[in-house]
Amino acid sequence: MVTIKDIAKRLGIAASTVSKSLNNADDISDSTKELVFKTALEMGYKIKRNKNNIGLYERRVCVLIDNMDYENKDQFGYDLVLGLKTAAANRNWQADIIPISLNVSTAIADNYDAYMLQNKYSGAFLIGFSMHNNYFKQLERTRIPTVLFDNHITANSKVGYVATDSYEGIAMALNHLKSMGHKKIAFLNGTKNTMISDERINSFIRIMNELNLTVYDELMENGYYVPNCAKYHVPTFIENGATAIVCASDLIASDVINEVTRLGYTVPDDVSVIGFDDLPFSANLTPPLTTIKQDRLSLGASAMILLDGLINDIPISHIILHSKLIERNSTAYVKTHI
Amino acid sequence: MVTIKDIAKRLGIAASTVSKSLNNADDISDSTKELVFKTALEMGYKIKRNKNNIGLYERRVCVLIDNMDYENKDQFGYDLVLGLKTAAANRNWQADIIPISLNVSTAIADNYDAYMLQNKYSGAFLIGFSMHNNYFKQLERTRIPTVLFDNHITANSKVGYVATDSYEGIAMALNHLKSMGHKKIAFLNGTKNTMISDERINSFIRIMNELNLTVYDELMENGYYVPNCAKYHVPTFIENGATAIVCASDLIASDVINEVTRLGYTVPDDVSVIGFDDLPFSANLTPPLTTIKQDRLSLGASAMILLDGLINDIPISHIILHSKLIERNSTAYVKTHI
Repeated sequence: MVTIKDIAKRLGIAASTVSKSLNNADDISDSTKELVFKTALEMGYKIKRNKNNIGLYERRVCVLIDNMDYENKDQFGYDLVLGLKTAAANRNWQADIIPISLNVSTAIADNYDAYMLQNKYSGAFLIGFSMHNNYFKQLERTRIPTVLFDNHITANSKVGYVATDSYEGIAMALNHLKSMGHKKIAFLNGTKNTMISDERINSFIRIMNELNLTVYDELMENGYYVPNCAKYHVPTFIENGATAIVCASDLIASDVINEVTRLGYTVPDDVSVIGFDDLPFSANLTPPLTTIKQDRLSLGASAMILLDGLINDIPISHIILHSKLIERNSTAYVKTHI
Repeated sequence: MVTIKDIAKRLGIAASTVSKSLNNADDISDSTKELVFKTALEMGYKIKRNKNNIGLYERRVCVLIDNMDYENKDQFGYDLVLGLKTAAANRNWQADIIPISLNVSTAIADNYDAYMLQNKYSGAFLIGFSMHNNYFKQLERTRIPTVLFDNHITANSKVGYVATDSYEGIAMALNHLKSMGHKKIAFLNGTKNTMISDERINSFIRIMNELNLTVYDELMENGYYVPNCAKYHVPTFIENGATAIVCASDLIASDVINEVTRLGYTVPDDVSVIGFDDLPFSANLTPPLTTIKQDRLSLGASAMILLDGLINDIPISHIILHSKLIERNSTAYVKTHI
């Protein structure tokens, strides 16, 4: 176990200076702090469970949020964050929720590991980060236990991710549609070239093959998690004879229903629609949406389980949750002609 | 929460009879016990955390072992079981280790859920079961939180599995070989048509493609986890120009080294060999084996983490651990000709 004395010895400075630096004292220069953090990280210094150090909690962890809404119940992040906070509280951990856009850029704040160490965070959960984010780019070499959502870093045993089983969810959706006679099934995926979109389209193709249903290139498109993506693809899907559309989110599915209706067709009589997520609003759509549920409270709880594992040197790469098909009224038996 | 009274009411019998049945009392007939267990399961009766009920422990869980050696340190199951028992002890859970071959067949013992309920097990970890096992066949519909190793059941949110990340491990092995100039790389897989063998061969093919290395059909074979499988395939691999052989276990790799040597070649000068598992003996082979480590203590710990999740209604499908390449002396730079 690397101690403050070890760091002081390596740097040839007083232990009190190291201690003050790690505690971010005002009377130490930024350049000294940076040197201390860098050396501490290189030597493998770890945040200790020390009540004097972090108050009444056993540990401090943080939830860094970039690009995901979580402030009202209809947003994906709401239950995710609630699940995280509950699971942290059960461990007597303090979980700080930090919208990353509010962080001020400094030499230490820009260095992911130094930022964590300076703030006495034992680990972090990152939600919604793009691969171009400065922190995300540092994850390949981080020594801070870090959990991602729907995204991955290879070959760093300090980083893991949580996600919902795409294969299982899409298998349930396609079995459901096949049992109602659907054969020409379209898939409107999310943003291209993300881990989760790749997994979903690969699952869709694999399961269609397993069910002996023909896969048509013109019935697979990438949308984006924004309004109105449906209007570019739904007309083509219908022209090409699709009787059902599986969507990568409830938001996309909601747009798809609107677009099908705008084109003069009816959901589910002419076209069946299935969503993904089971956000609260999906039960109140017209018609109420059949969808693949992601258990967001459990995803949040699992993120803390994974972080707990990484902090205790259990090298978990990922925790994947079961999905569940919620059958409502946006799917029905296929009509022979539309 | 379903109570003993609810079960008694449904069956129209005394609560004391239900209680005695669930406690497996001698003065209740087997047919009554079976009826009580069946009804209790249908109604969703759960084992309570009750110190009077199960002694000093918080919970009882069991580890059912079929077809895996675990009694000495050189066997795969040893650290797995040790990891399980340690993680159970940390939770104040009693973990019974049960070699399933010793179980006596009775109406109750043959019914997986009834057996668990009768023995007051909150959940189970099953190791080494074949798909033809009577218990395994009941897992699609079980209501008992159940964790498998390297095997899966779809669409039952009460069943999950733990495994090591095959893709990551094989990627490290192939990157290592490619960096030493190897191009014709063979893969000697385990038993055909298991989840884990399918994952490994799919990973091998995918990564070879990603590394722009040609995949040769004649350099991919299935062995078995038994001695002497190497002698059927190593001669063909060498005839077809393989300069490196990746094996699905250290046991297979050990046989492969012997077979390469018997054919008059040298490991690693003529043929590089990589194993999978990092069992204790692999460091003592001649030459010491380069291998993909499975962290078996952490696999055991993760199985308990998963079981804990399922017991608390967190529907974890699987927990996958990072793998690690342990570089020893059975791999070397490729020779131009062998």
